[in-house]
Amino acid sequence: MKVNVYVTLKPGVLDPQGKAIHHALEGLGFGGVADVRAGRFIELDVVDGTSDADLEAMCAKLLANTVIENYRIERP
Amino acid sequence: MKVNVYVTLKPGVLDPQGKAIHHALEGLGFGGVADVRAGRFIELDVVDGTSDADLEAMCAKLLANTVIENYRIERP
Repeated sequence: MKVNVYVTLKPGVLDPQGKAIHHALEGLGFGGVADVRAGRFIELDVVDGTSDADLEAMCAKLLANTVIENYRIERP
Repeated sequence: MKVNVYVTLKPGVLDPQGKAIHHALEGLGFGGVADVRAGRFIELDVVDGTSDADLEAMCAKLLANTVIENYRIERP
């Protein structure tokens, strides 16, 4: 079973990677960009029947730093 | 207008980051994981009316390395 996990910085947390992408886009002539936020996207292939609690634990313990990041679990 | 871009490694391309996550999950006792692929998730805040062609160009020129990565653009 495929599970997608999206990890994003919490609002208000500085995002130097996003800032760098924004700056580079402007340098390439793409002026119509107001903001860029960079995050991670993790595709997990887990055995069928993996519980939501297990997926939550994977995110909270390893995949995301919950002090500064939010995560979203999506079962397609 | 918010636009989400997902960048993933093409199938067959080695993914050391995903391998490391997989190994760490096993070390934490999560045995039911068959595979992990790591990718990037980029939230763009662009002006309304930005064309699909512009978004494609941003991805092809900067956000993704199209030799080894695929990208997917999603307008929520």
